[in-house]
Amino acid sequence: MKALLFDKKLRFSENEPIPTPPPGEALIKIKMAGICNTDIEITKGYMGFKGIPGHEFVGVVEKINDADQSLLGKRVVGEINCACRQPDCEYCQRDLGRHCPNRTTLGIFNRNGCLSEYITLPLVNLLEVPDNIPDEIATLTEPLAAGFEILEQLTILPSHEVLIVGDGKLGLLINHALSTTGAKITHVGKHADKLELVKTNGCKTILLDEMPEKKYDIVVEATGSASGFDFSVSHTKPRGTLVLKSTIAADQKINMNPVVVDEITIVGSRCGLFKPALEYIKTGVDLSPIVQKVFPTEKALDAFELAKTRGSLKVMVDFN
Amino acid sequence: MKALLFDKKLRFSENEPIPTPPPGEALIKIKMAGICNTDIEITKGYMGFKGIPGHEFVGVVEKINDADQSLLGKRVVGEINCACRQPDCEYCQRDLGRHCPNRTTLGIFNRNGCLSEYITLPLVNLLEVPDNIPDEIATLTEPLAAGFEILEQLTILPSHEVLIVGDGKLGLLINHALSTTGAKITHVGKHADKLELVKTNGCKTILLDEMPEKKYDIVVEATGSASGFDFSVSHTKPRGTLVLKSTIAADQKINMNPVVVDEITIVGSRCGLFKPALEYIKTGVDLSPIVQKVFPTEKALDAFELAKTRGSLKVMVDFN
Repeated sequence: MKALLFDKKLRFSENEPIPTPPPGEALIKIKMAGICNTDIEITKGYMGFKGIPGHEFVGVVEKINDADQSLLGKRVVGEINCACRQPDCEYCQRDLGRHCPNRTTLGIFNRNGCLSEYITLPLVNLLEVPDNIPDEIATLTEPLAAGFEILEQLTILPSHEVLIVGDGKLGLLINHALSTTGAKITHVGKHADKLELVKTNGCKTILLDEMPEKKYDIVVEATGSASGFDFSVSHTKPRGTLVLKSTIAADQKINMNPVVVDEITIVGSRCGLFKPALEYIKTGVDLSPIVQKVFPTEKALDAFELAKTRGSLKVMVDFN
Repeated sequence: MKALLFDKKLRFSENEPIPTPPPGEALIKIKMAGICNTDIEITKGYMGFKGIPGHEFVGVVEKINDADQSLLGKRVVGEINCACRQPDCEYCQRDLGRHCPNRTTLGIFNRNGCLSEYITLPLVNLLEVPDNIPDEIATLTEPLAAGFEILEQLTILPSHEVLIVGDGKLGLLINHALSTTGAKITHVGKHADKLELVKTNGCKTILLDEMPEKKYDIVVEATGSASGFDFSVSHTKPRGTLVLKSTIAADQKINMNPVVVDEITIVGSRCGLFKPALEYIKTGVDLSPIVQKVFPTEKALDAFELAKTRGSLKVMVDFN
């Protein structure tokens, strides 16, 4: 099968073996796959991952190694963490398979990813996608779920003043997720054209250069930069909450003193459950402006190059 | 009056004017004052403070500029943040005067501190100390309250496994505060003799070199070092809570990635209310081993030098 392959460098292969689904797993023919910043970090050595990257996809179930064949032939999206589900696993028992210490993660840790024609995933990870949702929108379920993860961790009330920092693709999807809370949302970023894309969600938008000194009850940092972190801390109220949605390069200097002095709570936030995200997509909301370009399979390396470009929105590869 | 004075350098003065209490405030004759790491940071430029440092004390009320004279002649301790208490102040209205943006702070911000013979403080900040509590133990109310602050911010259950990192004076006082929760507490530090001081609280103690890989529900970082922060993160369970109790020098490199990946919550924690701390002291618990040495007034500069020594416990100045 065709696949992007990373081992020290990223290359396109036409001869990768089609995987065989182990018990409880399905073989999925990929239709569309998205490229995430984590994939780019992987090509810089993140997680020491070698193999096929990619964890955002929509595909069709071609084969199931299980008595339950109900998803056969269905179009699905899939959660990326594959937990051990053992009775002695604290996290699996708490329904937090995303934190199972024995987990594999699609295209990130010990499991080949979806920038390829085929993957396997456990049946329990799969959710059927209604026919009326286009492939590229369904592919956004995974990064959108990362936005909805915030709502699993935090109670956001309509009375809360919320600031989203960063107008990249993650920031914009977070805006969509948080728009469901009714909170008073302000979105700050560097790009008027990107901020324009979320104005329809009813939020206020501010260009970074025009940001006032105001502090917010809840701030969501979605830039992944040390300067974005400092900016976010300085705009969080004393006793307020800062959601850290992006990893920040480990060699940056970060000033944690205001976190102590203002007793700020920082909530690290990563992958989310797909259900709330898919339900939101089913409402018919138009997420298409977040998809910048879809490349054909053979141009997957070009897709990666575009995804690496500063300021690019979501780039996808069409495996249909 | 005699006082320690900081303006670029720290010096001992015998001729400072005795302050006059403004309306609503009391003049307090200091009996004993403690030296905190924050005082040491102030002599390095923290907060740009100039004047008399010090915010841990016990003293006797000598004069009150208010109709309510009930505390006159009483021995008191005093909370260090002096809030504006205005009806339009969000934090004062939420009973969070500690975060009032217009506050002054004893010996830290816009208000002379207690390493001197006299201070003034608002009456509302003062709590009477029972006669049977020695001066040096009463002086520990302030740093002990910083430990109890954790219990105002977090729910700690007997089922929780808690790790306290750092066996300095703050770490030891935190141990006392958290021992009231019934949680399963482990205290890790570098000094067997210091860890010995909290064993009577029923906790488990571990030397840093012998620390296993175990992760905890709640970790309290009380070392104030970047390495202590990294250590604390690595011993916090996914979805667990890390309480950041000390400021960390701003020029350190900190790796926040595990915070995102493991969805750790970091809770910045600073000053606490005095009441729970004083109630704990009233139980008669023996905190005296935490006081390393008490210096006479004229030796206040020597006291400061000892307090700066790596590994020193609480150093105090006797102004009686």
